[in-house]
Amino acid sequence: MSYNAPILITGFTPFGGETINPSWQVAQRFADREMLGARIHAIELPTVFGDAEAILQRAIRKRRPGLVLMLGEAGNRSRISIERVAINLADARIPDNAGKQPKDQPLLKNGPAAYFSTLPVSQLHESLLAAEIPAECSLSAGSFVCNAVMYRALHVLADLDASARAGFIHLPYLPEQAVKHRFAPSMALSDQVAAIEIVLRTLLDQ
Amino acid sequence: MSYNAPILITGFTPFGGETINPSWQVAQRFADREMLGARIHAIELPTVFGDAEAILQRAIRKRRPGLVLMLGEAGNRSRISIERVAINLADARIPDNAGKQPKDQPLLKNGPAAYFSTLPVSQLHESLLAAEIPAECSLSAGSFVCNAVMYRALHVLADLDASARAGFIHLPYLPEQAVKHRFAPSMALSDQVAAIEIVLRTLLDQ
Amino acid sequence: MSYNAPILITGFTPFGGETINPSWQVAQRFADREMLGARIHAIELPTVFGDAEAILQRAIRKRRPGLVLMLGEAGNRSRISIERVAINLADARIPDNAGKQPKDQPLLKNGPAAYFSTLPVSQLHESLLAAEIPAECSLSAGSFVCNAVMYRALHVLADLDASARAGFIHLPYLPEQAVKHRFAPSMALSDQVAAIEIVLRTLLDQ
Amino acid sequence: MSYNAPILITGFTPFGGETINPSWQVAQRFADREMLGARIHAIELPTVFGDAEAILQRAIRKRRPGLVLMLGEAGNRSRISIERVAINLADARIPDNAGKQPKDQPLLKNGPAAYFSTLPVSQLHESLLAAEIPAECSLSAGSFVCNAVMYRALHVLADLDASARAGFIHLPYLPEQAVKHRFAPSMALSDQVAAIEIVLRTLLDQ
Repeated sequence: MSYNAPILITGFTPFGGETINPSWQVAQRFADREMLGARIHAIELPTVFGDAEAILQRAIRKRRPGLVLMLGEAGNRSRISIERVAINLADARIPDNAGKQPKDQPLLKNGPAAYFSTLPVSQLHESLLAAEIPAECSLSAGSFVCNAVMYRALHVLADLDASARAGFIHLPYLPEQAVKHRFAPSMALSDQVAAIEIVLRTLLDQ
Repeated sequence: MSYNAPILITGFTPFGGETINPSWQVAQRFADREMLGARIHAIELPTVFGDAEAILQRAIRKRRPGLVLMLGEAGNRSRISIERVAINLADARIPDNAGKQPKDQPLLKNGPAAYFSTLPVSQLHESLLAAEIPAECSLSAGSFVCNAVMYRALHVLADLDASARAGFIHLPYLPEQAVKHRFAPSMALSDQVAAIEIVLRTLLDQ
Repeated sequence: MSYNAPILITGFTPFGGETINPSWQVAQRFADREMLGARIHAIELPTVFGDAEAILQRAIRKRRPGLVLMLGEAGNRSRISIERVAINLADARIPDNAGKQPKDQPLLKNGPAAYFSTLPVSQLHESLLAAEIPAECSLSAGSFVCNAVMYRALHVLADLDASARAGFIHLPYLPEQAVKHRFAPSMALSDQVAAIEIVLRTLLDQ
Repeated sequence: MSYNAPILITGFTPFGGETINPSWQVAQRFADREMLGARIHAIELPTVFGDAEAILQRAIRKRRPGLVLMLGEAGNRSRISIERVAINLADARIPDNAGKQPKDQPLLKNGPAAYFSTLPVSQLHESLLAAEIPAECSLSAGSFVCNAVMYRALHVLADLDASARAGFIHLPYLPEQAVKHRFAPSMALSDQVAAIEIVLRTLLDQ
């Protein structure tokens, strides 16, 4: 894979009563870095249906990235969670940051039911385990804004640039978030950053 | 929806060290019954990739059902679990009953990434809760034989009969299975059967 | 064990936003029954620190039971949960039904740290599993009113009647409760009643 | 509290198929350090019923510590887990490292049913949360070797030195352990060490 093309990495604004979002805490660490000749652009997306997808779509059209790595928060998971698939469904258990709470809606009328991640999911999984970072492959990115963003990026790139790759990774709470919940697991920021560094290196080394 | 057409209900053979499978324990209770004029055919599918889909596909082609209700076991879930979507992926954590354990394989080369259930998932969910039966909508039917069968049925019907409906429901362990596991939840057979009766009535009443 | 002496079985009033409590739903089924010559008295205890213990203590002093079987609700457990031990601690995460919420308090100043159940816990566990009812032995009855009642009964009987036996069993939600929660497991009322019937028979058969 | 007296900190050898034990990984970091004038002695206890207690008892008699902080592994927990109570019960689900697997046995014939931790459990909990380290108070240290060691230390000190304090803290898996399990949560070693540092400082500051 050639990465003269830039890399987009995205995180989200806090939501659901949290004051930080691990996805942006991690993504911003990579902002404006260069890896193997590829420039990394970091974007903080609003946790708002429609707005998040629109901002990402514009960035993809503008930057023409070779790789789009999207990050999000999954507060009930204890591991780096590599998503396999995004589905054409918006079904929100809580309101997004603009108060929208779609139920049983398609993200894109007449869009395909799903897009698979175009990242080598199993290979990333093994790279993380080899580095002693707890990780898992996940079969569902949910039906909230995370899934919506993943679906949109894959949809846009399917048209725009078949050689570009895109995928989504869910991150656990940071410890400072978990202390406010009774049982939630968490992962240290340094381990989360190390995980994404490994993911990027694995993708660029191909 | 007219159901002069017959109904297919399917369950699976036991797998993963179990000696029974709740899906077939439940499905066989409906064998050869008639509901609102529709004849119910019950089929026990082998828990084997490829074979299960082939048997179901033949039955669909032969019976021309108006409704295909597929049942399976999800031993870690405590509720009637109505699946929303089947994905084009075979990725098995344990071998199936013929020793096959596909990894990262598509079910159907060049098939669509996913099919949504054509059942009214949210309405079924509400019908079950109204009847005081614990239920949930699920965003993943896994990537084992259950998902393979759901994908195939929806794929075949997409070609064959756009008016037919099909969907998949995962069932908890029966109590007699849960006693052999340390923590697994379970649900009484009578409640599982009542749940599927309600699902069928809800679908036929439309 | 001779059971010419009566049996006390106790349940609790609903708490924590619930409108029923499985412990009383089950206990009342045994009210005024006779088993192997022993009369069963059922008592619904208030979910209130202090009051619950006082009512039970009076009943024990009045009835002089040979067996005290206390039941309570544990909404996060999926199995019949036989408690091994009660500890001298009141530490409430939520207020009781009178608004009391003790923190880090002993139940009985200068009382022993704990009392073990005087029921044959492992034998009851095996009786339930043999009857295909999911069950477990538990090492903690919590630090809410359930534990307080168990502690008091064992304390009173330690003085009053060394031959009497007493123990506590936590019950899962009933399905009609679980439907109001997102993930909670449950067990059918008929299975819960069958479990307690087996427990009583196992104890009386000794 | 005066800590001219030395501090004992204990961890365990690996067990249950693991090759490391977080409790010893953490405890050895404190070996031979001095905190506020108190010398810290670290001991690696064998995960063997009887042997572990005997070694700890000898060390207590020899060192006359003012504080005994015992650490152990709880692979299913995601947080620093401060134990409240040790019970007089050995009941092992798996064999210890010498192949012993006691069932339903008292640790000490005619010993009291339980000992409460003599550490200020709630205060330690709050200190950890204030430092943004996920922590919880636990009502059960289990019935394996961890509980046995906690029970013995508290029993010995009850006789020997009423002013000495002792308690037990369970630690999550380290990430390098969690990668070998499918779902287990974990915590970074640096955060586990920081937690125990805070615990010691909180105790010494009193």
